[in-house]
Amino acid sequence: MKIRSVLSAAVLAVATTFAATQALAQEKFTLRLAETWGPNFPIFGDTTKEFAKLVEEMSDGRLRIRIDSANKHKSPFGVFDMVKAGQYDMGHSASYYWKGKVPETLFFTSMPFGMTALEQYAWFYYGDGMDLMQEVYAPHNMISFPGGNTGIQMGGWFRKEIKSLDDLQGLKMRIPGFAGEVFAEVGVSPTNIPPGELYTALERNTIDAVEWVGPALDLRLGFQQIADYYYTGWHEPATELQFLVNKKVWEKLPSDLQTILKTAMRVSAYDMLVLSQHENAEAWANIKKDYPNVQIKNFPSDVFQAMYDANKKLLKEAAGKNDVAKRIVESQESYLEKTRAYTDISERAYLNTMAEVE
Amino acid sequence: MKIRSVLSAAVLAVATTFAATQALAQEKFTLRLAETWGPNFPIFGDTTKEFAKLVEEMSDGRLRIRIDSANKHKSPFGVFDMVKAGQYDMGHSASYYWKGKVPETLFFTSMPFGMTALEQYAWFYYGDGMDLMQEVYAPHNMISFPGGNTGIQMGGWFRKEIKSLDDLQGLKMRIPGFAGEVFAEVGVSPTNIPPGELYTALERNTIDAVEWVGPALDLRLGFQQIADYYYTGWHEPATELQFLVNKKVWEKLPSDLQTILKTAMRVSAYDMLVLSQHENAEAWANIKKDYPNVQIKNFPSDVFQAMYDANKKLLKEAAGKNDVAKRIVESQESYLEKTRAYTDISERAYLNTMAEVE
Repeated sequence: MKIRSVLSAAVLAVATTFAATQALAQEKFTLRLAETWGPNFPIFGDTTKEFAKLVEEMSDGRLRIRIDSANKHKSPFGVFDMVKAGQYDMGHSASYYWKGKVPETLFFTSMPFGMTALEQYAWFYYGDGMDLMQEVYAPHNMISFPGGNTGIQMGGWFRKEIKSLDDLQGLKMRIPGFAGEVFAEVGVSPTNIPPGELYTALERNTIDAVEWVGPALDLRLGFQQIADYYYTGWHEPATELQFLVNKKVWEKLPSDLQTILKTAMRVSAYDMLVLSQHENAEAWANIKKDYPNVQIKNFPSDVFQAMYDANKKLLKEAAGKNDVAKRIVESQESYLEKTRAYTDISERAYLNTMAEVE
Repeated sequence: MKIRSVLSAAVLAVATTFAATQALAQEKFTLRLAETWGPNFPIFGDTTKEFAKLVEEMSDGRLRIRIDSANKHKSPFGVFDMVKAGQYDMGHSASYYWKGKVPETLFFTSMPFGMTALEQYAWFYYGDGMDLMQEVYAPHNMISFPGGNTGIQMGGWFRKEIKSLDDLQGLKMRIPGFAGEVFAEVGVSPTNIPPGELYTALERNTIDAVEWVGPALDLRLGFQQIADYYYTGWHEPATELQFLVNKKVWEKLPSDLQTILKTAMRVSAYDMLVLSQHENAEAWANIKKDYPNVQIKNFPSDVFQAMYDANKKLLKEAAGKNDVAKRIVESQESYLEKTRAYTDISERAYLNTMAEVE
């Protein structure tokens, strides 16, 4: 053997060892994320973009997120199935969209007369929320994480004032999901209509009322131009979006990238709540300035009480379906009771005090 | 030259090149953090521990935080000076502790009759808060970040009920800072007493009332055993702690570690608010169960109004001191007005609705 050959072989061996060590630490991953929203959807889309940016920066490019909006994957409500099947590695959506498939997913977005965002985050992270959510998603090979909160959603835009329960009888309203069922119990005819058709439907009296989100997102759809009564919320007091991660994908990530992914999801979820507060305040100031016709209304006490009772009845039915549903409903009820007792002497007392001084 | 020597030299050269590349990406940093709190201080100390853990895990050990509690560095209120001088790389404290040194630091913790935690985070991150804060800290070679929120602090424990402004005249109360000045304006004699002596001072009538934090931290000091009246808060509606980073230390970190550090601070700050909600709710439930003597009280309207007016007067004086103080006070006032208008139709309306149904 010539010196030259020995040398090459030795150098190659050393280089290979170093490269292998480095490669292990430096292996690169790209996760494909399907979101339910269209491209550049305000606030929700800002959240996934911020999340992806944080992941890439913190991992120095070792972990990248490629976001596909609904116009790309064409299946806004197929996110659950696509992540479960591994067609996508991750999803960004809302848990209650899957209630037709897995009824217990309903409970992890927001419940009528339920917890506020802060209370609900406390339930997720320091109560039983996260464990219960994983229990529901584990059979589907997915891990679910809080994905951003809208804050309290408004009760909707009405063209006529609601003065009593009588005014709700036969009223045609766009309100989907569990809240729609509650409204149906007190006489409303709930319907669901695609967002793009909502304005025209309300303008032409195809519907009498419409619930959407809150000032920031509602303002863009223009309801304030054709409805005078904007009702305060009760049905989705803390709408939490959702990150979904395919479990096999999660397990193949090294632990530093898992923590980076988890932390980026957590902080961008919190940030969405803070951004929602900011954007809603801006939009509400604009509505007040440009549309003096708009009046804020609370539903009358008898309407709230009837909806509260209807909600209790439906929750009891939902809890009766199986053991996990029962445990979730009980956990949320007992947590809410305790946390609200404190919110009442802190947040509520303070806000009411401030409303009185001048 | 023998084959053996040639081989060794070549291998060494290759190994050195690889090692150098790896070293650049893998340089390790340890940042020393001084916190104002004693070791294992509940909630506040949990926040710095979580922060350090996240940083280490996300950086895979490339960035470590070594926390020194007050018993180690012996200078709980020297954190500003120590981080400024570079004796420590980071600090965890509260901005208003430095108001004697730099008056404008006062505004970044919480202001009487000011924003709630959610509103204040919106001001920091989507309003002018962060820019104004950096403007105040830049001349001191430090960057300041939100460091965790207690939520609304309670108005304090009183041995006698406050029925009118008359009952406040000459009342001796432990209440520090700007809120103490507001209380002084309406007739209270504010004093500051070390935490370890508070219980005895209240028991022996050296003081008539004491403000501390909220149920979770108050319960441990035992005030509920000797005072019946627990007043709702107004003076620190969103006490935000603070991370301080020495600017030179920040600048020498590679950008991925900067983002890791920033994100870990941001998420552990948010988490502290959520943990505070959880712990306060638990503690309040325990107080209610074990101390039925404790009654929640709001100050009477005339007392709130007098404190509100005194606060406005003092704020005006503070704003008059220099240009940056003026801009901060104006920014907070205008942001509060807009954000609270929205909070009133969302959070406050909802909580009041829920308080009425049964």
